[in-house]
Amino acid sequence: MNTLPAPPRAVVLLSGGLDSATTLALARAQGFACYCLSVDYGQRHRAELQAAAALAATLGAVEQRVLRLPLNEFGASALTDETIAVPLDHSPPGIPITYVPARNTLLLSLALAWAEVLGSHDLFLGVNAVDYSGYPDCRPEYITAFERMANLATRATVEGARLRIHAPLIDLSKAQIIQHAMALGVNLALTVSCYQADETGRACGRCDSCRLRRAGFAAAGVRDPTRYAN
Amino acid sequence: MNTLPAPPRAVVLLSGGLDSATTLALARAQGFACYCLSVDYGQRHRAELQAAAALAATLGAVEQRVLRLPLNEFGASALTDETIAVPLDHSPPGIPITYVPARNTLLLSLALAWAEVLGSHDLFLGVNAVDYSGYPDCRPEYITAFERMANLATRATVEGARLRIHAPLIDLSKAQIIQHAMALGVNLALTVSCYQADETGRACGRCDSCRLRRAGFAAAGVRDPTRYAN
Repeated sequence: MNTLPAPPRAVVLLSGGLDSATTLALARAQGFACYCLSVDYGQRHRAELQAAAALAATLGAVEQRVLRLPLNEFGASALTDETIAVPLDHSPPGIPITYVPARNTLLLSLALAWAEVLGSHDLFLGVNAVDYSGYPDCRPEYITAFERMANLATRATVEGARLRIHAPLIDLSKAQIIQHAMALGVNLALTVSCYQADETGRACGRCDSCRLRRAGFAAAGVRDPTRYAN
Repeated sequence: MNTLPAPPRAVVLLSGGLDSATTLALARAQGFACYCLSVDYGQRHRAELQAAAALAATLGAVEQRVLRLPLNEFGASALTDETIAVPLDHSPPGIPITYVPARNTLLLSLALAWAEVLGSHDLFLGVNAVDYSGYPDCRPEYITAFERMANLATRATVEGARLRIHAPLIDLSKAQIIQHAMALGVNLALTVSCYQADETGRACGRCDSCRLRRAGFAAAGVRDPTRYAN
């Protein structure tokens, strides 16, 4: 009798939003055993962490962890400093104030650490460079540079492993992401994208993230299951 | 009347050991206003954090912060998992069990985040690739790759800043580092290098870090001020 080999492990960064949930579903569909990492970094929209737990469970993750990283001690972003308002109804040009300094670098670094412990060589991140907020750490050239660095950083890579950073959504529109999510059976009603979601996960409908999400559902021709506070 | 320009700010990763203390002194000597970042990552040798506070004060840092990052939740290193013993008296070949997965990547990423908030473009890290424990994230090619990635990661770099990762000790022997420290007036008695220092900072004298340090003092012809437990 043959036994099947164990599926390869992947670390999936799971914020609890639409993009990371779809990324988890794609990683599962590719056959990875998924270890989901969520980070409590002092974000205003903590409701996304409850969403992440629910999504990990419904999408068949092997494990989900929430790690605490107090980026609110640095502040300087509307997401980590309660005294800075989340911009509504329009985006001034340039990188918005919701950008959190070095966030994706920190998230990927934590995923890299856990991956090494798990013996995983595959990290998944739901960044997108089409319908996105203009953050520098969502661009393809950034992801490529992180991957190159990561391949010099760890014991695993010295010992010959080749680490891959998967960013399967990077070239998709929000509407295309929603279509992938539907095809994969992701329950998008569970996802929380709003930068200032209330404690129950209800969205403001007016921040950058809400506007991109709402427009994505409209463009995809999919009913928007988001619970809006207003 | 002319006013002098404010000195440029640097973020210095300060563990409390000999190398990072010397790095802080070098950054000060280069005219930087130094913001020291120490990280409580669940390390066995927590005494180094008290040493870091004392060193920041005596070496003229503008500020020192201790950030909590629970890497002990990942474990898999003798420094973050109490059930794994610190190797004594010899080093088996290869990367030792005291290696902490992705530690320098995480430390540099935290420094990158704080630097962006401070408007600093200079990060200092006391890594060394000569008399060192063989960690992959101490090699020059790793530092170069991190710098390249960092220069794509942040708002500051998108807006034209050029970030530099300074690793001034990388090519020095431990004896040369000690000589630099002496020339710069670093009180090396305050530094804690031991991987299993006791609560008062006394060193075991037998771990890799103690052996490299002790040999360095001998080679430099400098009296070793380390307080040994045995």
